[in-house]
Amino acid sequence: MALYVHKYGGTSMGSTERIRNVAKRVAKWARAGHQMVVVPSAMSGETNRLLGLAKELSPGKASDAYHRELDQLAATGEQASSALLAIALQGEGMQAVSYTGWQVPVRTDNSYTKARIESIDDQRVRADLDAGKVVIITGFQGIDAQGHITTLGRGGSDTSAVAIAAALKAHECLIYTDVDGVYTTDPRVVPEARRQATLSFEEMLEMASLGSKVLQIRSVEFAGKYKVPLRVLSSFTSWDVDIDEEARSGTLITFEEDEQMEKAIVSGIAFSRDEAKISVLGVPDTPGIAYQILGPVAAANIDVDVIIQNVGKEGKTDFSFTVNRNDYQRATELLKSKVLPQLGAQEVIGDDKIAKVSIVGIGMRSHVGVASQMFHALSEEGINIKMISTSEIKTSVVIDDKYVELAVRCLHKAFNLDKA
Amino acid sequence: MALYVHKYGGTSMGSTERIRNVAKRVAKWARAGHQMVVVPSAMSGETNRLLGLAKELSPGKASDAYHRELDQLAATGEQASSALLAIALQGEGMQAVSYTGWQVPVRTDNSYTKARIESIDDQRVRADLDAGKVVIITGFQGIDAQGHITTLGRGGSDTSAVAIAAALKAHECLIYTDVDGVYTTDPRVVPEARRQATLSFEEMLEMASLGSKVLQIRSVEFAGKYKVPLRVLSSFTSWDVDIDEEARSGTLITFEEDEQMEKAIVSGIAFSRDEAKISVLGVPDTPGIAYQILGPVAAANIDVDVIIQNVGKEGKTDFSFTVNRNDYQRATELLKSKVLPQLGAQEVIGDDKIAKVSIVGIGMRSHVGVASQMFHALSEEGINIKMISTSEIKTSVVIDDKYVELAVRCLHKAFNLDKA
Repeated sequence: MALYVHKYGGTSMGSTERIRNVAKRVAKWARAGHQMVVVPSAMSGETNRLLGLAKELSPGKASDAYHRELDQLAATGEQASSALLAIALQGEGMQAVSYTGWQVPVRTDNSYTKARIESIDDQRVRADLDAGKVVIITGFQGIDAQGHITTLGRGGSDTSAVAIAAALKAHECLIYTDVDGVYTTDPRVVPEARRQATLSFEEMLEMASLGSKVLQIRSVEFAGKYKVPLRVLSSFTSWDVDIDEEARSGTLITFEEDEQMEKAIVSGIAFSRDEAKISVLGVPDTPGIAYQILGPVAAANIDVDVIIQNVGKEGKTDFSFTVNRNDYQRATELLKSKVLPQLGAQEVIGDDKIAKVSIVGIGMRSHVGVASQMFHALSEEGINIKMISTSEIKTSVVIDDKYVELAVRCLHKAFNLDKA
Repeated sequence: MALYVHKYGGTSMGSTERIRNVAKRVAKWARAGHQMVVVPSAMSGETNRLLGLAKELSPGKASDAYHRELDQLAATGEQASSALLAIALQGEGMQAVSYTGWQVPVRTDNSYTKARIESIDDQRVRADLDAGKVVIITGFQGIDAQGHITTLGRGGSDTSAVAIAAALKAHECLIYTDVDGVYTTDPRVVPEARRQATLSFEEMLEMASLGSKVLQIRSVEFAGKYKVPLRVLSSFTSWDVDIDEEARSGTLITFEEDEQMEKAIVSGIAFSRDEAKISVLGVPDTPGIAYQILGPVAAANIDVDVIIQNVGKEGKTDFSFTVNRNDYQRATELLKSKVLPQLGAQEVIGDDKIAKVSIVGIGMRSHVGVASQMFHALSEEGINIKMISTSEIKTSVVIDDKYVELAVRCLHKAFNLDKA
């Protein structure tokens, strides 16, 4: 007997039939003697429907008062799906009760629409678990110190589930989703891609930040901070699959260094097409240049990813960075109008037809030459590398976006990821 | 400057366009210098949609745990519409904030799906009003002593609005609805029916209980208990109608006995077709008979309306009562199977093609002969009266339902209700 937290996404909660399947699955776990806490998202489409109504009525300019009401509105989606799941569980003969964020309570700061969890009171939940009830807690939301409803932002239900698992010291937090785990790379690009049975927390964090959308990155950070064992698995298997089999399925994100010992050097290939590259040419090579260029960009709320400053010659240097493709136009105009004249730089050039491909692996820590192995594999295919960025457990390259599938496939093969 | 509570029904909140109209109307009142509290219902159709989903998943048998989840679910409808109205008001340039029942808090008992309001804390609302904000409070819901969400049952938003007006000692509680007031009778039956500018609380109570569906009866009782001046008016006038004209429109339900002085003896004709009559014949005329017959009926949750016990002869009597037509079959079978054998009565007969027509008027208190004037008018039209029931300010008759329009028209005329 152990305490488990299950999290179900919007697609898994998308209809009464699917909610009934979730209830049957949870009931199976509870009947096996486990204490069960379930964190559901809103039914798929519901959050968009509500925010669409708000948009029609929107005052046009953002304000704290407006964001407060958006949270008050959006939080109803999870409240409804949680109550429906409790009812479905009662229909399966279980005792079940649903709580909103404020009923637990899940305390957050007061940053409406992107609040951060500060603490979770486990008293009420624990009393219900001890009384034999399945406890359902709305994902995505909490309450601030003044009694206002807050939400954690898109995908926040993953974070809620992990935070609740941490507060209850759950044995494992199971994230049920529409894929059956984390793959070595996107199976739509590389059919030989394999599901990874385990993955280290650091690797998952890199995969999530590099565009693998299985888990919200904040939830992975949270899991890392509180050492919550996290398992990503599919909610589209039959609910009555053997429970031991289910408990071993998917991908376990783990914190035990031992388990990493026999892992491959590279565990996955991540890629992102939503990139654009901007270069400022002929910048005077003086201290403070990076801040003078990127300060205005950050102030305009544009996220910068890979940053490269070439070695200067003749007192001039070239400064390049990548941004999200959606921000490309805005960033380029900002640099041309505001930064270029002040800086006395020569030119701003850019390219919005690029992609980023990364190899990730905790084994890279202790193995040298992994990056050059990557560069070699790409050059063999005639793929030109435009930018390089490295960290302890990943190497990213920026390439022409037309080569992205080819690059992912050749790297997947070069690092033997298609072999079990 | 005064404090007003506005209540808007589901139809008035039925789309973003209608919500924008409500916001414009409320903004007009606020700009005229009034402190404004608004109590909206859920968007029309939303509560039914939510309860429909619950029904699909329902455990089949009712329980407290199930009703708790129904309330947790249904309460989201008003939370969403209230947040949307706050957003629309912000769009009109107003400061606005929405609160759920638990945020105010509106404290209730723990009778899920039919809770009763126990107290309302006015501190938070008053602070916001004093800060110049329009305050929106979800109708229909509250919180019990254990922190569970409760709802007040269908139409409970009227009751919420009146209770909030009482707690805040509002100048008036305006119930905006899809009709422009309370009429002398249903204008679809009698085209000459007139809107009543004022109506006494007792008359409104009788009209509401006799099937006039303009106001929920509990809200009228609440208004009576706390002497809240209540105005029923239309939300389908243009929002920019002159505010003084709007403030005098509709029907004012009042508690000032003075204002009744010049009122007509009969102020309205109510009727209901949803009736059925059941008679138990040849009942031994002994004490306790009424309880022996109606006890099992009440235990089966069947509401009994008009009750008649004829004078007995030869130790036998006939006992008749009316029930809602939906309960007719169930009540008849219950009496035949359970009550008849034990009682030694002869027979149970019934008629589900009857209707009830009532005249209501506070003037009946001080005028004799009003009932006989009613009976005379009906007999002139050849309408046979099957049962009679009277109270201080109303007289009801049960007749064949095919005569109901004729009866209402002839009584409307007999009591000069078509004349201003």
